[in-house]
Amino acid sequence: MTDRPKTLAIAQELGQLYHSTRRLSLELASPLSAEDQGIQSMPDASPTKWHLAHTTWFFETLVLMQHGRGHECFAPEYQYLFNSYYEALGPRHARPQRGLLSRPSLDEVHRYRRHVDEAMQRLLRDADEAALQTLHPVVTLGIHHEQQHQELLLTDILHAFWCNPLKPAYAPAAAVPATAPGHAAGPPAWLPMEGGIAHIGHAGDGFAFDNEGPRHRVLLAPYEIASRLVTNGEFADFVADGGYERPGLWLSEGWAMVQREGLQAPAYWLPGPSGERGDWQEFGLQGLRRLDPLAPVAHVSFYEAAAYAEWAGARLPTEFEWEAAQGAPDIEQMHGLRWQWTRSSYEPYPGFKPYEGPAAEYNGKFMIGQQVLRGSSLATPPGHARPSYRNFFPPAARWQFTGVRLARG
Amino acid sequence: MTDRPKTLAIAQELGQLYHSTRRLSLELASPLSAEDQGIQSMPDASPTKWHLAHTTWFFETLVLMQHGRGHECFAPEYQYLFNSYYEALGPRHARPQRGLLSRPSLDEVHRYRRHVDEAMQRLLRDADEAALQTLHPVVTLGIHHEQQHQELLLTDILHAFWCNPLKPAYAPAAAVPATAPGHAAGPPAWLPMEGGIAHIGHAGDGFAFDNEGPRHRVLLAPYEIASRLVTNGEFADFVADGGYERPGLWLSEGWAMVQREGLQAPAYWLPGPSGERGDWQEFGLQGLRRLDPLAPVAHVSFYEAAAYAEWAGARLPTEFEWEAAQGAPDIEQMHGLRWQWTRSSYEPYPGFKPYEGPAAEYNGKFMIGQQVLRGSSLATPPGHARPSYRNFFPPAARWQFTGVRLARG
Amino acid sequence: MTDRPKTLAIAQELGQLYHSTRRLSLELASPLSAEDQGIQSMPDASPTKWHLAHTTWFFETLVLMQHGRGHECFAPEYQYLFNSYYEALGPRHARPQRGLLSRPSLDEVHRYRRHVDEAMQRLLRDADEAALQTLHPVVTLGIHHEQQHQELLLTDILHAFWCNPLKPAYAPAAAVPATAPGHAAGPPAWLPMEGGIAHIGHAGDGFAFDNEGPRHRVLLAPYEIASRLVTNGEFADFVADGGYERPGLWLSEGWAMVQREGLQAPAYWLPGPSGERGDWQEFGLQGLRRLDPLAPVAHVSFYEAAAYAEWAGARLPTEFEWEAAQGAPDIEQMHGLRWQWTRSSYEPYPGFKPYEGPAAEYNGKFMIGQQVLRGSSLATPPGHARPSYRNFFPPAARWQFTGVRLARG
Amino acid sequence: MTDRPKTLAIAQELGQLYHSTRRLSLELASPLSAEDQGIQSMPDASPTKWHLAHTTWFFETLVLMQHGRGHECFAPEYQYLFNSYYEALGPRHARPQRGLLSRPSLDEVHRYRRHVDEAMQRLLRDADEAALQTLHPVVTLGIHHEQQHQELLLTDILHAFWCNPLKPAYAPAAAVPATAPGHAAGPPAWLPMEGGIAHIGHAGDGFAFDNEGPRHRVLLAPYEIASRLVTNGEFADFVADGGYERPGLWLSEGWAMVQREGLQAPAYWLPGPSGERGDWQEFGLQGLRRLDPLAPVAHVSFYEAAAYAEWAGARLPTEFEWEAAQGAPDIEQMHGLRWQWTRSSYEPYPGFKPYEGPAAEYNGKFMIGQQVLRGSSLATPPGHARPSYRNFFPPAARWQFTGVRLARG
Repeated sequence: MTDRPKTLAIAQELGQLYHSTRRLSLELASPLSAEDQGIQSMPDASPTKWHLAHTTWFFETLVLMQHGRGHECFAPEYQYLFNSYYEALGPRHARPQRGLLSRPSLDEVHRYRRHVDEAMQRLLRDADEAALQTLHPVVTLGIHHEQQHQELLLTDILHAFWCNPLKPAYAPAAAVPATAPGHAAGPPAWLPMEGGIAHIGHAGDGFAFDNEGPRHRVLLAPYEIASRLVTNGEFADFVADGGYERPGLWLSEGWAMVQREGLQAPAYWLPGPSGERGDWQEFGLQGLRRLDPLAPVAHVSFYEAAAYAEWAGARLPTEFEWEAAQGAPDIEQMHGLRWQWTRSSYEPYPGFKPYEGPAAEYNGKFMIGQQVLRGSSLATPPGHARPSYRNFFPPAARWQFTGVRLARG
Repeated sequence: MTDRPKTLAIAQELGQLYHSTRRLSLELASPLSAEDQGIQSMPDASPTKWHLAHTTWFFETLVLMQHGRGHECFAPEYQYLFNSYYEALGPRHARPQRGLLSRPSLDEVHRYRRHVDEAMQRLLRDADEAALQTLHPVVTLGIHHEQQHQELLLTDILHAFWCNPLKPAYAPAAAVPATAPGHAAGPPAWLPMEGGIAHIGHAGDGFAFDNEGPRHRVLLAPYEIASRLVTNGEFADFVADGGYERPGLWLSEGWAMVQREGLQAPAYWLPGPSGERGDWQEFGLQGLRRLDPLAPVAHVSFYEAAAYAEWAGARLPTEFEWEAAQGAPDIEQMHGLRWQWTRSSYEPYPGFKPYEGPAAEYNGKFMIGQQVLRGSSLATPPGHARPSYRNFFPPAARWQFTGVRLARG
Repeated sequence: MTDRPKTLAIAQELGQLYHSTRRLSLELASPLSAEDQGIQSMPDASPTKWHLAHTTWFFETLVLMQHGRGHECFAPEYQYLFNSYYEALGPRHARPQRGLLSRPSLDEVHRYRRHVDEAMQRLLRDADEAALQTLHPVVTLGIHHEQQHQELLLTDILHAFWCNPLKPAYAPAAAVPATAPGHAAGPPAWLPMEGGIAHIGHAGDGFAFDNEGPRHRVLLAPYEIASRLVTNGEFADFVADGGYERPGLWLSEGWAMVQREGLQAPAYWLPGPSGERGDWQEFGLQGLRRLDPLAPVAHVSFYEAAAYAEWAGARLPTEFEWEAAQGAPDIEQMHGLRWQWTRSSYEPYPGFKPYEGPAAEYNGKFMIGQQVLRGSSLATPPGHARPSYRNFFPPAARWQFTGVRLARG
Repeated sequence: MTDRPKTLAIAQELGQLYHSTRRLSLELASPLSAEDQGIQSMPDASPTKWHLAHTTWFFETLVLMQHGRGHECFAPEYQYLFNSYYEALGPRHARPQRGLLSRPSLDEVHRYRRHVDEAMQRLLRDADEAALQTLHPVVTLGIHHEQQHQELLLTDILHAFWCNPLKPAYAPAAAVPATAPGHAAGPPAWLPMEGGIAHIGHAGDGFAFDNEGPRHRVLLAPYEIASRLVTNGEFADFVADGGYERPGLWLSEGWAMVQREGLQAPAYWLPGPSGERGDWQEFGLQGLRRLDPLAPVAHVSFYEAAAYAEWAGARLPTEFEWEAAQGAPDIEQMHGLRWQWTRSSYEPYPGFKPYEGPAAEYNGKFMIGQQVLRGSSLATPPGHARPSYRNFFPPAARWQFTGVRLARG
């Protein structure tokens, strides 16, 4: 005998989460014109409009076309246009050319979203218990997928605006998630961690990505971890001390990047109007502003994070050390400010099993050439991250809200 | 004593030409959305919006800022954003990044155009005879400059739409300049030209670019020239005969391009729905259509034109032969259909003098690595081309409306 | 009171090891002409002559110029020419241009070797106990450094000869280290490993590189490891089963490499003379030979190793699992045949300390973007490798003698 | 009735020219070791050994294999290895990889030369009148072909040695063709040329390449031509006057090259030991020497030549002006010092017919994207050049002995 009220409640809750997530994407795009929403400033970044369409494609392709009887595809060619990297789902539009898609228009993409939203709401409304058991995981995955793109939507438009000599602001100050007030006037504390066996990976019933499991044990040596993130002011000291000119501080590939690209400071830093050494501005979602020395540094690559750590006589924590330090007394700024580079490359946990079906390509196939980042950033949507969350980017990436927490020992 | 009525008449005529030219640019852009007008599909092409702004910049910078007393610049940063290649006028936005300029918006660019148009109309209205003598050449240059960009506006959006898997049409059929009815069912006639001393270059009082002069004499050997352009059907015969697989037909650089890029047919040709060899579609301003075998072939590079000529047992005419054949009895399709590749590289005429001032960079500095094209195309605005007109593009260029006329002897 | 006889004995032993190592380098080069010894087939590989000079430079720069009083530099410009990547030791000749150094001649490099060898022998002969304590570690490092280049000398000339359409053989069969006889006719056994705390890293007094320490404990889950390496025959089955055509088997970067470079089989495999599918030849130090189906597969990248493992329903071991499996009963082919890709990226062990002085750049700065390989190959000089030895190469590297051992669980 | 003695005399003369040409190639290579003769410093340059083999391949393939009955190929694979660019003669070794061919060895290439030389001498000795009529043109072509490679042999090794930080000298001073004594202390005279109809192209019975004909008439306007070449001292004045920093002097492509490659002076110029601005050294066949201010400038690209001319208030002559000025009273330095860039792109003369057979690819297929150079250089073998000779290189080429003669009017 099925428990219809419970099924209804679960479906309703899922539908509400679906609805609020979908609405947030549009809200994040709302300060941007249709012109803004079409541009792509580098192959790694995508246009806002593409994010809006691709997240919709995800629901249409992985939910409606699999489970929605009689679902009418909005436009068959969108299977090609808005597939990101799913080989099993057929060929796709070349990633570096997403910025050329002036058609479909933004209005058309909005219609696409509404078409899929209506079908999704119908599907959830009509699901019986058995259907819901099938739908729940993949709809939830689609919601978390869209949340990931919400963050990318912000970081990608920030990069695009950075490339514009007019340096436009994404939004007036009030509308943008702000950096938490700094506690960073004094040096960070070194919090002692005793090591031993740590339990790593997702536990419990809530949602987690496949890459967060299986939960397993890792043996840690004792270590110390910094109570807070490295600040802009501290990083400016590194710059002023010739940090970008001393090869001995850098990994070999990092130094090659410094030289090849002429790096002199974190991404989005510009010399200030005084022209004096050490006077910096930072470009962000609110536009160009004076660098706040107490805010955590952002937009550094793994290479810069590691060079800073070397300069500071410390190192980056492993992802296991980071996870084990969650909840340590006096530890701060673990979430909501900056993704935190770890000294761990992105590898499968022992016994890792990717999702079944097309979503198998979600995480596993990227487990090479990337570093794990932990925590979450000011651009991460509320409710998205977890202590066991494993973000990952290539070590050269700078356009995310990436920062530095130190460890030693 | 000045002749005020005559001055007024000249100024009025110039103002009308200015006005109608400026209006045509907006008309050409009118089938395109703001999203369409922002995209750039390759470094050689520019967004529609950029064309609209750059042509305006030309008038503001070369006319108003030089001759318009008290002209108030619309936005100083546009000097940087919309300068194309004038080194003497300062640094400029990188050409391959024109597609990233979602700001200024299209509306803002329209305001920029109105601001400059009003200032231009005031300037012309108030000009006395002396002022008009100064203004007339540079305003006329600006008008012809804008006409050149009108053609590029069309060829650039055509390329951008080609890159879109949806293959959108620029405009419904009626609104686009159509190819003249074909006379091409039989073979072309070979028109005999006796050679001797030809007078080459612009004559008379009308406007011409600096590169069309000085008029001078060139000695030509007798030759024959084809009465019409090579057709799509004839070019399809070349394709079917293995034209793109026989290195002996090609210049060395052309063959390298064929191999590197896997060329198999002119640009914008796609296999037709039948899937049969020889069934072709062509993408154009009206979208994807069945290839018209009687229409002149378009979108071939100089290399393809030369290989076709070799295959046909003929050659391309020099630009002098082409110019000398103007007005020959029975010669057809010299203007208004396809730019016609010549066997002449783009070099200065004996005694060539570039414009003075910033416009010195208009033509002269490109006189290397390019081939001369003669005639004009369906996308050339009315009144723009002349018998002495010298268009030029690199030999690999395919995105213009470029075609082939043969010569021999 | 010093123990002069013991000092003498240690110095003598070190001198003999120095001498035999230096002699082996020349022996390995001896089948090659001066012309052969000058060529460089890709930036990652170096000419034989360069290896001979660079290993000499290492002793001159890190031993003689630091510790050899009054050492007369053979040629000051060699400091520039033969420095590989030591930023602290000044600028250096660009790596991709090592093949342009027809001067100094091979004869001159031989003279350089003799000059340094004589100075080294004098230095060791005259060393008192205190001096020997200083010299011993760095001379030993230089010896192991030269051994590493002995392997590279072979793999680099193999790649260079592969690029030659004549496919020359490095040496007649007898002179080249041979692959051990195959035990591989049946399937490999899966050896059960119980996991638990493993002690990882170098122990004891013998030489080890800095990256092999500190010795530390790692917690392993139970796993199984294959008793032997994957054979050519097994890998040919993967090829025949469409292994290089099924994206679902590949890491994303690996699949991109397959497509970009058109990979269809391991490096150095060529279709056999029969032209039949599955008839393969392999190019090796003895030239082109029929593929031996029982020999371990070689010249696969990490990507290919991982794709094979996926196809075989297994995975690659971590470097810790590999090290813990040393000495397991029935395990074979751990050393002397193929370097074995592991699923571990090359990272510092907890508490890692690089060498002091210029040798600090020896290993640590490469700890990003590389995978660890364990074991040793047929080209590794005798006495060079150890159970704790950590070799490392980028995941795309194919020109080393790299093979595959599977794990599961 | 055949005239056997005359046939014999002609064959003997041809044989002697063949012999002396072949000997000169070896003499030019003789200061170089086998290691030197193997290196290739850029795709445009070839190793000495390759030149020695390719010129031999030319005789074997175009003479012996066509006309030498029963000729035994030295090595069939050389058809692949030493074909330069003849598509009709089959596939060939990739040009940028010529420096990887340590095999065949130089000794082997010498054997190849002897094998072909002996067969050629036999063929000429045994030729009857009819055979000689067939052989004479293609053997003569092969001789002139080898002479062209003699010049390239010198310019290519010069470039390779320039890439070596040791800056080795090709040969002691006495052995190298020297620059003629300078008459250049005062300014050059401007020699007036009256223009009119000039007869251009090869006349007479002697050998000329296909691209030198047909002889035809060209109409020239009056002009002036400089009596001598631009000197190093004059070019140093251009450098000192900011010549490489003023975009207004440059063609657009030239300025792009200046910026992309950071050009500051002609190729092979290095700041002198004084470190003072204007103190220059020049690298040449004799090694690094103080710049001779009276010697003609060398190793400038067409772009630099054109920028210099603009700076000097002059221009480059067309190839027709240059040819018409031959033999003008008081004109100097037309031959034997520097190839002289002209303002003419390399195009077919009216009625141009390429050679028949495989040699059709000799010249004609390169008639795009190149500039004509006239005269000859210090590295051109005696007897090779003619007044009608048309050398050609891309406008960016700097590694030839290229100089500047000015014209105006």
